[in-house]
Order: sequence, then C-alpha cells, then structure tokens
Amino acid sequence: MAPVTALGEEMHALVERLYPLCRSITGDGVRATLAIVDEYIPLQVHEVPTGTRVLDWTVPQEWNIRDAYIADATGRRVVDFAASNLHVLGYSTPVSATMSLDELRPHLHTLPDQPALVPYRTSYYKPQWGFCLAQDTLDALPDGAYQVCIDSTLADGHLTYAEHVVPGQVADEVIVSCHVCHPSLANDNLAGIAVAVFLARRLAEQTPYYTYRFLFAPGTIGAITWLARNAEQIERVKHGLVLACAGDRGQLTYKQSRNGDAEIDRVMRHVLHTSQRPHTVREFTPYGYDERQFCSPGFDLGVGSLSRTPYAGYPEYHTSADDLDFVCAEALADTLAVCGEAFAVLDRNRRYVNLSPYGEPQLGRRGLYDSLGGRSDAKQAEMAMLWVLNYADGEQSLLDIAERSRLPFEAVAAAAGALRDAGLIKA
Amino acid sequence: MAPVTALGEEMHALVERLYPLCRSITGDGVRATLAIVDEYIPLQVHEVPTGTRVLDWTVPQEWNIRDAYIADATGRRVVDFAASNLHVLGYSTPVSATMSLDELRPHLHTLPDQPALVPYRTSYYKPQWGFCLAQDTLDALPDGAYQVCIDSTLADGHLTYAEHVVPGQVADEVIVSCHVCHPSLANDNLAGIAVAVFLARRLAEQTPYYTYRFLFAPGTIGAITWLARNAEQIERVKHGLVLACAGDRGQLTYKQSRNGDAEIDRVMRHVLHTSQRPHTVREFTPYGYDERQFCSPGFDLGVGSLSRTPYAGYPEYHTSADDLDFVCAEALADTLAVCGEAFAVLDRNRRYVNLSPYGEPQLGRRGLYDSLGGRSDAKQAEMAMLWVLNYADGEQSLLDIAERSRLPFEAVAAAAGALRDAGLIKA
Amino acid sequence: MAPVTALGEEMHALVERLYPLCRSITGDGVRATLAIVDEYIPLQVHEVPTGTRVLDWTVPQEWNIRDAYIADATGRRVVDFAASNLHVLGYSTPVSATMSLDELRPHLHTLPDQPALVPYRTSYYKPQWGFCLAQDTLDALPDGAYQVCIDSTLADGHLTYAEHVVPGQVADEVIVSCHVCHPSLANDNLAGIAVAVFLARRLAEQTPYYTYRFLFAPGTIGAITWLARNAEQIERVKHGLVLACAGDRGQLTYKQSRNGDAEIDRVMRHVLHTSQRPHTVREFTPYGYDERQFCSPGFDLGVGSLSRTPYAGYPEYHTSADDLDFVCAEALADTLAVCGEAFAVLDRNRRYVNLSPYGEPQLGRRGLYDSLGGRSDAKQAEMAMLWVLNYADGEQSLLDIAERSRLPFEAVAAAAGALRDAGLIKA
Repeated sequence: MAPVTALGEEMHALVERLYPLCRSITGDGVRATLAIVDEYIPLQVHEVPTGTRVLDWTVPQEWNIRDAYIADATGRRVVDFAASNLHVLGYSTPVSATMSLDELRPHLHTLPDQPALVPYRTSYYKPQWGFCLAQDTLDALPDGAYQVCIDSTLADGHLTYAEHVVPGQVADEVIVSCHVCHPSLANDNLAGIAVAVFLARRLAEQTPYYTYRFLFAPGTIGAITWLARNAEQIERVKHGLVLACAGDRGQLTYKQSRNGDAEIDRVMRHVLHTSQRPHTVREFTPYGYDERQFCSPGFDLGVGSLSRTPYAGYPEYHTSADDLDFVCAEALADTLAVCGEAFAVLDRNRRYVNLSPYGEPQLGRRGLYDSLGGRSDAKQAEMAMLWVLNYADGEQSLLDIAERSRLPFEAVAAAAGALRDAGLIKA
Repeated sequence: MAPVTALGEEMHALVERLYPLCRSITGDGVRATLAIVDEYIPLQVHEVPTGTRVLDWTVPQEWNIRDAYIADATGRRVVDFAASNLHVLGYSTPVSATMSLDELRPHLHTLPDQPALVPYRTSYYKPQWGFCLAQDTLDALPDGAYQVCIDSTLADGHLTYAEHVVPGQVADEVIVSCHVCHPSLANDNLAGIAVAVFLARRLAEQTPYYTYRFLFAPGTIGAITWLARNAEQIERVKHGLVLACAGDRGQLTYKQSRNGDAEIDRVMRHVLHTSQRPHTVREFTPYGYDERQFCSPGFDLGVGSLSRTPYAGYPEYHTSADDLDFVCAEALADTLAVCGEAFAVLDRNRRYVNLSPYGEPQLGRRGLYDSLGGRSDAKQAEMAMLWVLNYADGEQSLLDIAERSRLPFEAVAAAAGALRDAGLIKA
Repeated sequence: MAPVTALGEEMHALVERLYPLCRSITGDGVRATLAIVDEYIPLQVHEVPTGTRVLDWTVPQEWNIRDAYIADATGRRVVDFAASNLHVLGYSTPVSATMSLDELRPHLHTLPDQPALVPYRTSYYKPQWGFCLAQDTLDALPDGAYQVCIDSTLADGHLTYAEHVVPGQVADEVIVSCHVCHPSLANDNLAGIAVAVFLARRLAEQTPYYTYRFLFAPGTIGAITWLARNAEQIERVKHGLVLACAGDRGQLTYKQSRNGDAEIDRVMRHVLHTSQRPHTVREFTPYGYDERQFCSPGFDLGVGSLSRTPYAGYPEYHTSADDLDFVCAEALADTLAVCGEAFAVLDRNRRYVNLSPYGEPQLGRRGLYDSLGGRSDAKQAEMAMLWVLNYADGEQSLLDIAERSRLPFEAVAAAAGALRDAGLIKA
C-alpha cells in the first residue's frame, strides 16, 4: 500500500467529519452528510416525496431521531443514542415506556459471538422499535424496571439523494455510486464516500472523454429511486463503479458486473493485474451493494463494484468496530489511486480502424519509424504502432491490443495517438 | 456406495431370474426376458418381421437354439450349452457332424490370456457356427474324433422389443434405453435392465413433467428398428439415457451425448459432482452401446450413457466371469439412486422469465424476505430468490442458476416456486 | 533431430553456394541468387520498375555495389567488402574520401556487446553510407587519416522476385514464402530458401490437391510488391507458410497466423505435437518476417511462419556469426521433413458429409467391418470409420475428427477414403 500521503489524510479527515452523523435511508442525517460533501464538490440534491412509486417500490416515510436511551431505575442511561447512533434500531418507531428487562428483551439486538460490540440493525419496512447493544452490556443489566425512550418521528417527508457531474467530451456517462445511509460505520460506507469525493475532484482537473456522474444515495431504495427517475436516459450510462468498504487495510476486491465481461470489468482486471497490487476479482452475485440494482436484468448495466475487504468479509462488518481506526489514510489513498488509474484507461480506451490495412503502411516516410534496419532491438513505440495497425479493426479496443501485445496501455495509447495524427487510423 | 438395501436385493433377484435365459438379437430368449420384465412393469411388446427394412439395415432371420455340445469319443460332453449358453457362438448355424480336433479348431473361440474364462462371441450377419470355451478346456482336449452338435434354427420370424411408458404432464419425452440381447452376462446387461425396471416403477409413483419412455431392445439392430419405426415422432425425444454395465462394484461413469452439452449431460455432471460420488465423465465416442444410434448425426439426440465400469473396461467384460457375483445389490441400488436424483433435476429444470426485471422487486412486502436489515447471514432461501430473479431471462435454466450461484438445485427450484407463486416470474 | 542425410547435405550445399552473394532488397545479388535456385526448380522471375506504387509503398531505386573498403594511411584495407559483404551498410550511397577516424566514426556500426562480430545493418529508405565492423577491429584502429570508398550505385532499375508453382488438382493455393534480401547470413535466410527449394521438388513428385506457389522475394517490399500485383486473385490463397531461420540447431518454432486458428495453424500444431518433436508454438505478432504483410488486416490470410530458433532469438542473429557453420544438414532436413508432414495432412484435410446419417450404416454388408461380434479389440480402422461417419457433417474436417478421436490422421484419412469409395460419404 502507498505510504501515508497528505491526500490520504485529507480523505480520512472527511470520514471523521461524517462519522458522528446519524444517517438512514431518509432524514436529516443524509442531508447533513450531503451538506458536508457539498463543501468539497458541488452537489445537486434531490428530494423525492414519501409515497412516490419508484419501480416496484414506494418511497417510505421519512425517519428522524433526536434522542433514545434505556435508563435504569436510578435514571442512569445504560444504553444511549448520544454515545453511538448504532444503539437504535434504524427506523425505530417512537416509544416511551417503563418495562421489565424481560419485556424489553425482544427489542434488544446483540452479537453473542462478539460480546463487546454493538451491532448495526434496521427495520425499514416493518414498523418496530429496538435497541442494539453489546452482549456484555446486556449481560450486566440487573433485572428490574427500565425506562425506555426513542424520540423519533416517522412521517411523510422525502428521500434525499445527490448527484455531482464532471462534464466530459461526450454525453456517454460513467456512473460512480456510493451509499450514504449507514450511520456511524466508517468503512461501510464513509470510506466509499471519501473516495468518490476525491475522485470527482481529480477528474475535474482534466477534461475527461466521458461524462462522470457521481451518485450519493441511500442503499437499495436510493439507487432504485435514481433508476426510476432516470430510466429514460439510462442508455447513456456506459460504465459504472459502486464504491463500498473502500478504506480498510485489506487488499482490493473487484466484483465484476453481471455479464462479467463489461469494459469496466476488463479495465479493472487489467489495472489491478498490471499494477501488481495484491487483489481479488470476484464474479457477480446479486447481493452486496447497489450493483444489485444497476445489474438487475432489466437494466443490466456494465457496473462493477470496488471494495477492499468485501461485504460481510470482516468481523467488524456492521458493528461498532467499523470505526475511525478501522479505516486508514493509506488504504483510502490506494483505493483512490486505483480508481484514477482505471478511469485513465477507460477514458482513453477507443476502438480505431486502420485506414491502410493492406500490408503495413510505410511508417518510415511518415517519420514514425527508425530508419536503420537490421537491428533486433525494435523499440516499444514502434512495436506498439505495428500492433495497433494490425488489430485496429473497429472491434478491438486499445485495451484489447495492450493485453494481446503485452505492451503497457500507455504505450499503445501513445502509438494510437501518433497513428491517428498521421492519418493512418481513425476512431 | 450405499449400504445393502431391500431395493438393491430386489434388483439383484431380477438379475438372477434373467441370468439363465439364452438371449440374442432375436428369438425366444428375448421374449422370455420381456415376459419376466412385464411382471414388474407392463410392457408393450413389438414384433417386427424378418426382412423389414429399418434405416440402412434389414431385420435378420430369427435365431433359436435348443441344444449344443461337443462330445468326445466316449460321448462325454466336453463343451455343453446346457452348462452355459455362452458356449455357443451367437447366431450359430446348425451343425451335426463328427470331426477331428484339428478340423474343429477353426470353430473354437477362447481367451488365451484369460485361460479359465469362456468368451462371449456372436456372428449375426455372417452365417457360421462355432463354440466358445476356456483355453484350459481346449488345452486339455486330446486329439481324436469329436461329435459336434448345434441344434439351432435360423429362419424367418421376428425381432422383438418392448416399451414401457410413464406418462408425464407434457408429451416431450425422456427415453431410457437398455439392451436385452446378451445371454448369461450379468453386468452387461441384466444390471441395466434391472435399473431401468425399478426406475420406471419409481417414476410411476409421481406424475413427472416429462413423459418417460423405457425401451428394452436388442443392441444396435433393436435401437435401429425402434428409430426407423419412430422417426416421424423423434423430435418429441428431448433427453435420454442408455443404461449398461450398471451393477458392478466400480465407480460411476457417465458418457456424454454427441454434442457434450445436452441438458442430460449438464444434469448428470451436476448430480454426479454435487453428490460427491467418485465418478468419471467421458466424452462421446461413436462406439459403445445404443447411444451410437441415438447420437448418429442424423438424429443427434441429447442421449448420454450411464455405466459403472464402462464398456470393455473390466477384465470380466464379455466373458463367463461377468456372472451373478460380479454384480452386487449395493451397486444396483446406487445406480438407481443416481438416475432418480438426475431425473428429479431434469424434470424440474425450467427456464423462467423475470416479470419485474428493473431493479429488485420488493420481496419484503410480498412476505418473501426477512424484515430485519443489517444482518450479514442472508438466508439461503433469500439468496436463491435473488439469483433466480437476476438470471431468470428465459435463457438460463434453474440448473444454470444453481451452478452459477453454487446453491443446491433444490434451493433454487424452491425459490423459483415461491417467486412463480408470487407472480414475479413465469415459465 | 534426424541423422545426417544425403538430402540434408544437398540442402547445405545450396546454402554454401548462395552464401557469398551480396543480396539486398534489389540488385544483381538477388538476380544471381534466383539464377542458382532456378537450377534446382524452374522460376518465373519478375522485374518491377523503380517508382512503381505498391500498396502504401513505392519500389525504390536499385542498389548495386562493386567494392568498398576503409584503408589506412599505408593503403591497407582495414575493413574490406571483399572479405565479407556484411561490412557495408546495405543500400549505402557511394563515397570516396579521406577523413580522420573521428570524422569516420558516425558512419561505423559495431556490436559493443559482441566485440568480435560484424553486425548486419541497412538503410533502405534514408540515403546514407556506412560500414559495419567488429568492435575489436574498431578499437585497434589508430587515429589518423583513412581512405573511404564505397563503389555503389543507387539508380532507377528494378525490384526482382520469383515464383515457382507446383500445380495441383484445384486452383486453391498454398503459398510458401521466403525472403531473399539478406547478404551473407546463412540461417537468415539461406536456410529458408533451401527448405523451400527442396519442398517444391518433393511436392512436384506427387500431384497435390492444392496448387503450391513458392515465392522468393525480398523482405517487406518484396512481399508488398507481390501482394499489390496479386491483390485481385488473393482469395485463391487458402493457406500459407513463411520459412525463415530454418537451419539452426534449435528446436522448431511455429508462429501462428493472425487469427490463430487458421487451418495451417491447426495442421502445424497437430504435426508438431503428434510427431513428438520438441517445439514451441507462438501467437501471432505483427513483427518478424513477411507473415506481417500476409497477415495485415486487409489481407488477413491464413499464413503462419516456421522457424527453428525464431527471429532475434539467438545471439548470432544479424551478425557475421550467422554463417555456414551455424546451420547444419540435420536441421535443414528436419525442417523439410516437418513441412512435408504438415502439407501431407493439409493436402488431404477434406470435409465430408455422411450420406447415411440416420443410425449407423451397416458396414458389415459392405465388407467394411469384421463379422465377428463380441470382441473388445475393435480395430483402429473400424473405429476410424465410425468416427468419420459420426462427425462427417460438412463442418468438421478429417483433422478435427483425428484430434477428437485421438486417432492418427492417416487412419482417419484412410477410413474416409474407404467410406467415400463405398458411397457412404462425399466431400
């Protein structure tokens, strides 16, 4: 992994700012999150009313919470939302009551196998209330009466998501998506948000070929809402990447798109392989993050997913141990670097046609070839030109040619540029 | 292999009953065999007259035999059909003569490398007579005059074969075929007959989707006769399995159909692999049993062949050592079990279409999904539903989805049932 | 490798005769070379005028050279064309001057890493003059004045190439090409010329199915000229082989055609593999010999290339060490033998159609099958017939069937012949 860099530290600082907010699939926590992101890159924020039909789903009521606790007979808060927003079951209905521990137990969620950790649980579509706490905490609670309070509201409102667009030379789009619905979980998915933000900034420094659209939306219902509202123009999305669990110390994991051979799949495999980073490539599964929606068979977009340790693959997953120490600046910077390298390939990966396909064109008289024959040390640049000329058939991309020739993509792209300037190939 | 079961013993008992009969490609031995099978499952017996043109062939004369022996000068039968019907070259013309051992020798068939065993030999299409005997027996014969007698008839008559049909919900058929032309050889093919009989019984206990047609016919000419008489309706045969050498103690061998990727090939490979039985899968070869005819290029049916130790792969093959001890109840029961498992998959292996392919349908509001989010232990049933929804495109079968997802076929089939009942997919 | 044979010695003798001639891409050295080849096989020689447009190129001026040397102050020739034609940069413009060693240096080419060897260098398209010499020679030269002379002419004339055709039964052609432009380099490519010559002789002893066209032409510009002049009839070229570096002691290397699955590729792989010669098969690269032109995307012919140690793969490559000792009679004979074996397969590799595809035809009544059934040692010839019958579908060639069945091509071809004579298959 890369050494600690100022950039990595900046990314981690963003994670730190976002960490305390109580996000969910709707509500003010999402809005506060997007407001901070907007300080880094300008966002277009969308508010979609409760009850709106989105594909097979309906936008739910908006959930907001102010306070929540379990207090013992002395009034001491033994479980307190103020200490960690994980303590409340996401989308809990309000409650204010006093009850025995036994009455309370069905509403308590723990991790018996990880007794020191608080689990992350939600109940978006079945109205109920509950608390999450460490098994150790639960075990230490004496019998007796407890005061239970969840000061939440579940009411008609809006689902909130945001977009940021880096304009390109063409209207064809690359979508980069990350979920913004998890509360105080650092790797899942504040790390993904941070990578997306800094990636957008980096792309804006160039004029990329593609238009890059960054989507910050709650998981599942947010992606579904975006898809429902953009179904008409969906064919402009040519490639995409879902970012999640992007900041832990594990090696990189790329999960392929549904068909497994989309251009983003080929690009990511190429960059991960040629950069010699330890990594894993996984086949698509219809489970995980919002690639589930982008790769549903009706849309079937060329969208993959980049993580470090993937979904549910680490013991800290969906627990209070997924905290600010669990993600590190080096990993954040490394994930960002890979995204940058991959998009640098994707963005230049054209298909060209050789305009002089009968025999080799005479490169020498065009100044493209060394004049002295007989030497065996043919230069890489010349080889790259011969490879591009031979395989530029309108079907094979520069990446195809780089992989076939085992030449660096950079060399192949440079050769294509020279040949295009010489009028020998055209896109 | 499975422990000895009552079913395995019952199958072995059928083999024992059939063993003494002198079967050939025509004649009363075949009729007697079918009469016994008919006691287990009702048969429709067909008699096709000598001289009938069947594809490129002609139904030959019918052969029957009453007695045959070689007796020495003292009248002692040194080779005797009554002791084993293998002693006579199948389809021997009649003979009654006295001759020297040297005159007799060209008519004697032995196995010099297996001197204690009697070989199995036939001459269906070139009229000749002969005896098969152990090399040891031959070596012990003194010179001198021998009385030679084969009391056989070769005359216009019929070729006999039989069918048993287990009706299904659709007219599309699965054909299960076994040859009934070998005399006292237990594995080749009384074991195949026994498996077919008990498989038919088992299928009849359900109402299968496909119609299952069991064919009991002499090898080569029998299959060719059936194909000639059923060529008009052959397209109803969607899948098939030839059973042979099904009862020895060796591991299972599946020989694929001609194209190697027929549905029966995929099903058999899946069941053999997932059941963790030791087994071998072989590519198609145009030699072996009646898959040669079903997989001739004009028909090119999706018919594979299931054996234990395959054709010519064991030293007992086509010798007197392929006897009642060579086949065992456990192996017969195991072969039957595999067939049952395979047909259970084949019979339910539909292709469905997702009726709600844009994004995931909301399973929760249909009662198909656990309401509590955040847990990483997504249940197999839920995963199976997501896999089916994502890949139910009318092209991929449930078996495709099971293999892709590495979920049990049972789980995938159950998920498909639930989704179909919820109106989310249709066949 | 094969033992020394008279044929190998004869081939080496041809290499020896050609070795001293100063060949280049034009000029009398090429003509003298073709005149010697014409003593072995009759050639049709073509002369194409300077300035003729050939595809993207133009036929250059013709180059001839009579003498060249660098002489020291005493008149001693320290570098002398008469000693080796490698000493002159190919296509050197004339020069006659006296200059200091420092003035001379930019015109001198050496191999610092192989200080005892003279490199081979050319400058076809950029007018300049130069000498090639051993680094050791250069290092021994004292400062001082040197007389420099290159008595060459670069003038309008012709490019010379030749063809030899072995007529076949059909107009479809196999092209065998070798370059004739290198001066005193034995492996690159006098060995290729020798193999081509003796291969043509061998083919002429039969009446092959294909027409075989042998092309002796200067590298690159010669192949391009031939292609330009034959573009109209190029579709008659069905297969081809470029011969180069065919006589060194290394193992055989076959470089595949551009698409990698041309029939010549399959044949060469099959013959190299089944003959159990150590060998390497390489993917196509758009660099090497004239396969670059034949496999340019506009032509995209099924042309591979056969070498022993391939292009630039040996330290002697393009140096004075590629001499008469570097090639040996055994290697030349072995390369010839492989070509002969490959063309024997290629020439008979038909696609047949089974005229009796429903069930197996009855081979016995046609005398094609052993009459005695029951034996497990089915003969190879019978197996080959069954394989041909089953797979003769007009798509699969005899080579496909040989590889699928793992039977020798000879057995499959013989079976096809028997079945064709029996009227069971047709081409």
